[in-house]
Amino acid sequence: MVSKVVFGRGSFNQLEDILAPNRKGRNAPFIYYVDDVFKGNHWLTSRIRLSYKDKIIYVPTKEEPKTSQIDKYVEDIILEFSELPSGIIGVGGGIVMDIAKAVSLMLTNKGESKDYQGWDKIKHPGIYHVGIPTISGTGAEVSRTTILTGPERKLGINSDYTPFDQVVLDPELTKGVPKNQWFYTGMDCYVHCIESLNGTYLNAFSQSYGEKALSLCKEIFLEDNLTKEEAQDKLMMASWHGGMSIAYSQVGVAHAMSYGLGYLLGVKHGIGNCIVFDHLEEYYPKGVALFKEMKQKHNIELPQGICANLSQQEFDKMIDVALSLEPLWENAIGKHWQTEITREKLTDLYKKM
Amino acid sequence: MVSKVVFGRGSFNQLEDILAPNRKGRNAPFIYYVDDVFKGNHWLTSRIRLSYKDKIIYVPTKEEPKTSQIDKYVEDIILEFSELPSGIIGVGGGIVMDIAKAVSLMLTNKGESKDYQGWDKIKHPGIYHVGIPTISGTGAEVSRTTILTGPERKLGINSDYTPFDQVVLDPELTKGVPKNQWFYTGMDCYVHCIESLNGTYLNAFSQSYGEKALSLCKEIFLEDNLTKEEAQDKLMMASWHGGMSIAYSQVGVAHAMSYGLGYLLGVKHGIGNCIVFDHLEEYYPKGVALFKEMKQKHNIELPQGICANLSQQEFDKMIDVALSLEPLWENAIGKHWQTEITREKLTDLYKKM
Repeated sequence: MVSKVVFGRGSFNQLEDILAPNRKGRNAPFIYYVDDVFKGNHWLTSRIRLSYKDKIIYVPTKEEPKTSQIDKYVEDIILEFSELPSGIIGVGGGIVMDIAKAVSLMLTNKGESKDYQGWDKIKHPGIYHVGIPTISGTGAEVSRTTILTGPERKLGINSDYTPFDQVVLDPELTKGVPKNQWFYTGMDCYVHCIESLNGTYLNAFSQSYGEKALSLCKEIFLEDNLTKEEAQDKLMMASWHGGMSIAYSQVGVAHAMSYGLGYLLGVKHGIGNCIVFDHLEEYYPKGVALFKEMKQKHNIELPQGICANLSQQEFDKMIDVALSLEPLWENAIGKHWQTEITREKLTDLYKKM
Repeated sequence: MVSKVVFGRGSFNQLEDILAPNRKGRNAPFIYYVDDVFKGNHWLTSRIRLSYKDKIIYVPTKEEPKTSQIDKYVEDIILEFSELPSGIIGVGGGIVMDIAKAVSLMLTNKGESKDYQGWDKIKHPGIYHVGIPTISGTGAEVSRTTILTGPERKLGINSDYTPFDQVVLDPELTKGVPKNQWFYTGMDCYVHCIESLNGTYLNAFSQSYGEKALSLCKEIFLEDNLTKEEAQDKLMMASWHGGMSIAYSQVGVAHAMSYGLGYLLGVKHGIGNCIVFDHLEEYYPKGVALFKEMKQKHNIELPQGICANLSQQEFDKMIDVALSLEPLWENAIGKHWQTEITREKLTDLYKKM
């Protein structure tokens, strides 16, 4: 689990004090990966104090992170600095936080990041790493994974060493998120709850986190009783609890199929989940009904027909990616999921999207 | 925060595998502090595998832990073993878990434990320490404190190093708890929620945990929809979430006054909280009303008149202890609590108990 967390509006100002005791020396910099949407945003960047060889690297977030990108970042650090960094700090959404986690791990584990996609392949603790979400919903701030698109699959590096050593939860950092992105990423959390609470892996631990996150989502996306600030605070907590819920259970059908869309078409995770989940009445009837209500309340129009012109080969590729995520299917359907989830079934579903 | 946690009925069986990678050598034992109620309980103790110089120490739990007791345990370890232990494992309720945390810290921080009562006085990480609750409610499994009665005060060692490195949440271990103790300790959690949710320190982080713990308490203590096992599972999670809620806010009036009772009369924490909380309508009207409902539903009769024969000097001592807990009062009442909470007020309240 995450070792330390601070929460509060303005807590981002504590970053310097939080990092200081972890500095290993003048030649061991803090490397900040920052969502490039904040480039030139003085309100945020002026609060990142660079000392000695510290460095900000702006991360483009149009695409989900690739294993090749992680390997490049790691190589850049090794070539540029004489010592390993004191810490890796990710300031951004799921993409940026996952990059920070992956770079931290790959600085101390030899080889290429694609070789660590899977479960518990990481053997050494990473560099001290800090997550600072600037959008809420992914749960990346609390999860034990870092989702990467590799040459062969879209799959996380799941390990005990993946979670952040420190998280700073400052809901004020989410104030500039555009509405659509707010919705899609918030729905990532909502889908985590539905998949966790309806999964066969469920236990009282995950259930308690999932129920809390779900009730916060309902408060935020279906009711009108919250101020803007309260809604930001609560969505940050929903993301946290939703992430905790799946950390000790698993996600399900929407995530498995969304990974397929992401791998083939580069559809981003949040919107991909929404596109898939919208068609999953058969698996999550109540959850999908509520999702449609939320979508309507916030006037969200999802892209249609994104799979309309795909070849059979392309469908097959998406289906290969989706089916490779066995724990997700086992959680969603049960041990005998393979009898129910056929390639035809998935083709039919993808064709609706 | 707690770094690692496993949850599940029977997860206690994983203990050997969990500890193994943390063994530092043949001369660095694992020391188990185990509630002496389990002495001769083969069902539990046979699952603690002792290797090399590992040792079980049975802990009497009639009284809350004292700083002198911690210092003695630490001295015993230093005299008996040539190396520092590989780990300290607490198997029991709040008392035993607090002992495990305190011994772990005092093995690496010089001097007497009384000198560390307070906030952030601990300077060095403790020995690897593991908490395994066998009763639910205290939140000691997740808290950043270890409550000790010292020569001058009853006060915790609160620090970033206090939380366990590993927690094993196995609800099956709580199956033998007697009814009264189940209720008193469960109410410790309930009171944590009420004090946190009604405190001035409240924030969205603590609120989300407190609300979940409170809703679980209601399910367990007021409704009749749960099997015995479900109720055990859920109470273990309520304790966890309630502990998380106060870790990032604070407790209040009941805890401050209960510490006074504990210090002077040796009243144990759970029952002490109940005795005090029963008279706090003025501060927590809804919470106390619900508490009385729970008490009635489970036919719990609280001791009456425990302060009937106390001298003024004794009242003064209790009041000194209670008033010394300034953050608790500030959380409960606000910055100007001293104008409202007078010695007369507290005398009147204690006289009712």
